[in-house]
Amino acid sequence: MTHGGDIYSGEVELDFSANINPLGMPAKVRSSLKADIRSFGVYPDPRCRALRRALAEKEGVGPENIVCGSGASDLIYRLAHVLRPKRALVAAPAFSEYEKALTEAGAKVSRFYLREKNCFRLDESITEYIPERGAVFLASPNNPDGGMIGEELLKKLISKCEEKRAVLVLDQCFADFARVAPNLPRPPVAVKAFTKIYAMAGLRLGYLICEDISLAERIAGYGPCWSVSVPAQTAGLAALKEKTFVPRTRRYICREREFLSEALAELGLKAFPSEANYILFKGPTGLGEALLRRKILIRGCSDYHGLGPEFYRIAVRTMAENERLIGAIKELLSEEK
Amino acid sequence: MTHGGDIYSGEVELDFSANINPLGMPAKVRSSLKADIRSFGVYPDPRCRALRRALAEKEGVGPENIVCGSGASDLIYRLAHVLRPKRALVAAPAFSEYEKALTEAGAKVSRFYLREKNCFRLDESITEYIPERGAVFLASPNNPDGGMIGEELLKKLISKCEEKRAVLVLDQCFADFARVAPNLPRPPVAVKAFTKIYAMAGLRLGYLICEDISLAERIAGYGPCWSVSVPAQTAGLAALKEKTFVPRTRRYICREREFLSEALAELGLKAFPSEANYILFKGPTGLGEALLRRKILIRGCSDYHGLGPEFYRIAVRTMAENERLIGAIKELLSEEK
Repeated sequence: MTHGGDIYSGEVELDFSANINPLGMPAKVRSSLKADIRSFGVYPDPRCRALRRALAEKEGVGPENIVCGSGASDLIYRLAHVLRPKRALVAAPAFSEYEKALTEAGAKVSRFYLREKNCFRLDESITEYIPERGAVFLASPNNPDGGMIGEELLKKLISKCEEKRAVLVLDQCFADFARVAPNLPRPPVAVKAFTKIYAMAGLRLGYLICEDISLAERIAGYGPCWSVSVPAQTAGLAALKEKTFVPRTRRYICREREFLSEALAELGLKAFPSEANYILFKGPTGLGEALLRRKILIRGCSDYHGLGPEFYRIAVRTMAENERLIGAIKELLSEEK
Repeated sequence: MTHGGDIYSGEVELDFSANINPLGMPAKVRSSLKADIRSFGVYPDPRCRALRRALAEKEGVGPENIVCGSGASDLIYRLAHVLRPKRALVAAPAFSEYEKALTEAGAKVSRFYLREKNCFRLDESITEYIPERGAVFLASPNNPDGGMIGEELLKKLISKCEEKRAVLVLDQCFADFARVAPNLPRPPVAVKAFTKIYAMAGLRLGYLICEDISLAERIAGYGPCWSVSVPAQTAGLAALKEKTFVPRTRRYICREREFLSEALAELGLKAFPSEANYILFKGPTGLGEALLRRKILIRGCSDYHGLGPEFYRIAVRTMAENERLIGAIKELLSEEK
């Protein structure tokens, strides 16, 4: 296992490895779960009808364009298996589950390496590598760097994928944390999650927006029935009723992200510009272990293709927690000297 | 969707279509969920370490023999994909997900038809059809009839599968409802669930006991990380602390199952002997629809291979509910005359 958020192995007081909203689960979500515990005993609606109706309204599409899953990762796997492309393209570094899911589904996966000197920003040259009738799995913001795909490039990606009859899948799980939510063109398949923005990682809830209704049906029909639990559906419905939570979160994250980026720079550490609720930076080897001895968990990025042991990812957390992290790093760096 | 438990389509007052413990979720499970809602915000332990330790102790195996999943059906799919057998054997009628999972994983699936005149009991002749290096997915008790595989036949199945180098997977999700829990030999792979016995269907929690540790590892590593949610792990741990709940349930179910079987026989309907918390019986066409007009949902079985529209499955529920169901069927039958 090489993901963030594994707080179960040892003693961790501050988890900066998982990218979860530091404001926590909205109070209304918690109270709806509490009120609904008896219904956890019955089978969930396998088609998630109420939740899909609410999501369709939010996203301005039909309920038939929405597929719900047990977290975004469940949907990434089902997508890979249903599309079953011979060849696929992913970026590197990126969330490792795209490549794992595509490989398990039998695809030959190529990696488009993002360059450090471009701050890991995706550029137009990726369009030359789109596999004919294949699949392209990208994220915006990307994980672990937090870089976004701009309007121009996204339009180009969509049209080039159409030209090559390749399916473009865009993971937008962290898009709600970006400074602006510009009116970007919708990709053929968008992956979204409740996990991060509503701090519901333990409940496992994500969804797809599929332009192609028959693809949506095939994904919904693939794999086990009842993949979305009752608590996930309950919490999702309650979360969608929150109208101020997302903009409030965005303002908070933007301010704290700026604080962290500036503080890292002041410490002489290179931090990459991010639009997500996490920051990729370069630090001395052994920083992760040294912080863990102080019960602070950050995400070492040496297992990301294209990154080495000098790369770390930290989540943007509460002001007090962020200050404690920076204080700890500062102390460790001065000890080194 | 062709499973029981779909109470979301219309107005249902009594659900006899889903096979869930009528005593409901144990009180300690409910209170542990209530106490734990804040932890639903963090990622679950992807390896389910605490839960696997508790299960290993209960089952008398090592934690490395246990794989947890998002319901038994999640594990059936992962098993099928990891085993990826060229050929597989299932019984008919049986839970349809075995065949669907195996087919999705690329297997050619053969059905061994159980005979009504044998009360759908499995017999030794199935061993002639075990595919060389294939997979055999069976259930004991079987769904929808509730028939169990006895000690002699199970031993024969295990040795014949070994001989043919085929993997035997035995779904024992309903075994806790049987009159006796005899000390049967353990199959190479056993599938179990919390769903039914602890009335936790909405939470999605099942597990495998795998003799072969390397197979267990491959199943655990297949597909998305974090497949078992925090509420499922919390509830599972709390459920395992209940020591009297399962025997109490068994006694209750045995008594009510007898009542239902006898009442159906008195009404002139043929009911098949069951060791599970459900009963398969034959009734007049249209019975399901007529009961639904009275807001009672039962499971029509015409979509099971080997059964026709005259077959119905009912769950064994509380005394009052069972009496109401029998009363309703009695009225409908007398109206017909």
